[in-house]
Amino acid sequence: MFASNNILNKTLLAASIIFATSLHAAEQVDLMITDATVLTMNSEKAIHENGTVVIKGNKIIAVGDAKLAQQYQANIVMDVDGDIVMPGLINTHTHASMTVFRSLADDVPGRLHRYIFPLEKKLVSRDMVRIGANLGNLEMVKGGVTTYSDMYYFEDEVAKTVDKIGMRAILGETVIKFPVADAQNAQEGIQYALKFIEEYKDHPRITPAFAPHAPYTNTTEVLQQITKLAKEHNVPVLIHLAESDRENEKIAARADGKSPVEYMDSIGSLDERLVAAHMINVSESDIELVKKAGTGVAHNMSANIKSAKGVSPALKMYDEDIRIGLGTDGPMSGNTLSTIDEFNQVAKVHKLVNQDRGAMPPVKVIDMATMGAARALHMEDKIGSLEVGKLADVIVIDTKAPNMVPMYNPYSVLVYSANSGNVRHSIVAGKVIMQDRNMLTVNEKNIIEEAIEFTKKVRQTVIENGEKVI
Amino acid sequence: MFASNNILNKTLLAASIIFATSLHAAEQVDLMITDATVLTMNSEKAIHENGTVVIKGNKIIAVGDAKLAQQYQANIVMDVDGDIVMPGLINTHTHASMTVFRSLADDVPGRLHRYIFPLEKKLVSRDMVRIGANLGNLEMVKGGVTTYSDMYYFEDEVAKTVDKIGMRAILGETVIKFPVADAQNAQEGIQYALKFIEEYKDHPRITPAFAPHAPYTNTTEVLQQITKLAKEHNVPVLIHLAESDRENEKIAARADGKSPVEYMDSIGSLDERLVAAHMINVSESDIELVKKAGTGVAHNMSANIKSAKGVSPALKMYDEDIRIGLGTDGPMSGNTLSTIDEFNQVAKVHKLVNQDRGAMPPVKVIDMATMGAARALHMEDKIGSLEVGKLADVIVIDTKAPNMVPMYNPYSVLVYSANSGNVRHSIVAGKVIMQDRNMLTVNEKNIIEEAIEFTKKVRQTVIENGEKVI
Ligand SMILES: [Zn+2]
Ligand SMILES: [Zn+2]
Repeated sequence: MFASNNILNKTLLAASIIFATSLHAAEQVDLMITDATVLTMNSEKAIHENGTVVIKGNKIIAVGDAKLAQQYQANIVMDVDGDIVMPGLINTHTHASMTVFRSLADDVPGRLHRYIFPLEKKLVSRDMVRIGANLGNLEMVKGGVTTYSDMYYFEDEVAKTVDKIGMRAILGETVIKFPVADAQNAQEGIQYALKFIEEYKDHPRITPAFAPHAPYTNTTEVLQQITKLAKEHNVPVLIHLAESDRENEKIAARADGKSPVEYMDSIGSLDERLVAAHMINVSESDIELVKKAGTGVAHNMSANIKSAKGVSPALKMYDEDIRIGLGTDGPMSGNTLSTIDEFNQVAKVHKLVNQDRGAMPPVKVIDMATMGAARALHMEDKIGSLEVGKLADVIVIDTKAPNMVPMYNPYSVLVYSANSGNVRHSIVAGKVIMQDRNMLTVNEKNIIEEAIEFTKKVRQTVIENGEKVI
Repeated sequence: MFASNNILNKTLLAASIIFATSLHAAEQVDLMITDATVLTMNSEKAIHENGTVVIKGNKIIAVGDAKLAQQYQANIVMDVDGDIVMPGLINTHTHASMTVFRSLADDVPGRLHRYIFPLEKKLVSRDMVRIGANLGNLEMVKGGVTTYSDMYYFEDEVAKTVDKIGMRAILGETVIKFPVADAQNAQEGIQYALKFIEEYKDHPRITPAFAPHAPYTNTTEVLQQITKLAKEHNVPVLIHLAESDRENEKIAARADGKSPVEYMDSIGSLDERLVAAHMINVSESDIELVKKAGTGVAHNMSANIKSAKGVSPALKMYDEDIRIGLGTDGPMSGNTLSTIDEFNQVAKVHKLVNQDRGAMPPVKVIDMATMGAARALHMEDKIGSLEVGKLADVIVIDTKAPNMVPMYNPYSVLVYSANSGNVRHSIVAGKVIMQDRNMLTVNEKNIIEEAIEFTKKVRQTVIENGEKVI
């Protein structure tokens, strides 16, 4: 399961093609992927059959066809034999640490108040956050996710796990008006976030952020304070927005009948640093406001329909060029954390609700999982496509697994056929973190064992709380 | 990738626990699965934690808890370390050989007449059927399917592939009024089917069947003739029914305004040998007719919403105790052939359309993939649950993969988290056909290579037909 980077390098070199191009003064690079079906996801959606991706340090320095390979001499050459090479997937919204509760009481009425809140009250701790984040990270890497956006508590613990596994993440420290595990009130939450931001502001892969839980669980003053602080510190703000009818009612009562989006706009908090998750109950004028503000949208279709909340007009938002990308929501909602396992549903459910079999074609789904998601997180200058100058976050997908054959159209294969088990390799910032599904940066077995061990505590607490483990 | 059964036995024995129970005159058996989370899918939906399944010959002879293991001495003991052990999945409707066309022109308008029909006209042959069925079978076994129901041409070729890989199948030879690759008209199709039925009527794992394509593509006389012949030969009849508005119109015009179901009933062809795929456009009275007739229903949700045809009232049919199980439909429709990759959608889309987060809970989805599917195929006395006397079609699902942890509720984990990559072992009729994802009966690499080789012919033919490979 575990291999040091030295072992990796030897393994890759053993299987690699060494190009004898030194006569032509080939440029020395770190990693070159060859013989790939390269989906660049650039603005032209260019595909290179038998393509090459060249990586130096943490960046992509060239993308092109087979001939390109001759110009470089690479320390590591990965010949992927026609497999799909594409930008790492970006999960725009989750709560990774909640994996420790996953599959508990999924369809039980009143689950939030009978299970989740009482469990969180007793069990959220640095330990729980670390154990859950480790499990969530592992699942995401194995599913092709290289960047994710998280909202939870003790995000500095999540940060340590992200640093270790080698992923990229926006980590939003929760601000909420109720007492929670790491803060007694919103102001303490803001202080916790500020300290976390200070600690991680220069990390190459981690972006610290504020995460006001939702408009209805924070006061107007707190939301405005966060908007101001986020601007000062130049960090993102993550929020749940326009998610439920109950939210609509609460905000309408607070703000003169305004919709949640109108309310956020009216208090000056709908801006280009905001990432709004869900956006189910949005009108045409809400969409206009979001577009004008440059706010990002996390579309969590699979989680939203599990709770029968409805389907966000995500296709309309995408077509109107709004910054929108796919998210999974947390493991109690989704339940998986890999957007690849949602592609199929996203395409098909939008066809169903639009009553149009041509709606949401595969290329749009893949765009929403890569460049769209990068735009939603305001990171489109750094990630989301395979283009020169971008950070080298790259995944390789097996195209010889039976469910992936044949491949007349790689977008169709990815959307309608692929699952997370088809992801072979993962590279973040130029570093291989998974090779042939083996993790190179963390010990998978230990992470799983620690998570399973923690479930004993969860089971015991459920019973202490007078409920059943179902 | 390939191992002989001798190698298998040695491998399994090496990792097995040998019980020294000869003093107690332990019964000698062939295969025993221990330390399993056994989902029996019997009428009580009994689950055995730390359970045991005992297999002798091709049958299950005991199912129970850990102590049960002491009563038997097994040639092979599989200690699965807590993994899920459940009945093999049953795909109630597909067209396996069409895998060779999968991912071609998925969302192109007029695909049926621009791509599929012209391709089938030129390319359907014994070779194509064999190559496609081999690929489809492989994908299904790797996704936990042990039994499937197929409708296509040259089904005797499909039968050879099913025999080889070791699966179980109902294979329906198509009868249709147009000229097709293996018959010039419906009567030739019937003759082909009769010959096929004669050839395979005594096969232990293959049930030959008639497959009239649909009511609107066959005459009343042919449908009645098939009903009569199926009764004489005691074989199933597979059909597409109540799939589209166009079908409703055509049948209404033919039969005095009747719905497709009413029409089939009125001509005496809605009976207990029929398996009707889709059943999207069905009224309450249609459902009553189907229930009274004992007709089976194949629910192909994922395929149906891809073409924006709508969602069958499958939950209502299930709740009314109709014989209904999950199917994938063909690879041009679905596109995968493993029902496990549809569980998530089936649960969630029914919640969405019923506007009820409690609708279609995981246990119902799993029931529709196992016992419900067995009932739909009229095979509930032989397969669909792990019970004494049933055929030993059993799969083992990894519960230590990151997406499968934790497991408070095994049905939730299977439905909301699992994908086909989590299937570890597959046993059909007591014989291990896949172990740790390695095929033991066929050469996976050869099957994939042959399928990829065939795509060249498909690409060339698309271009000859004046279309693009998109
Ligand atoms: Zn959320
Ligand atoms: Zn069909």
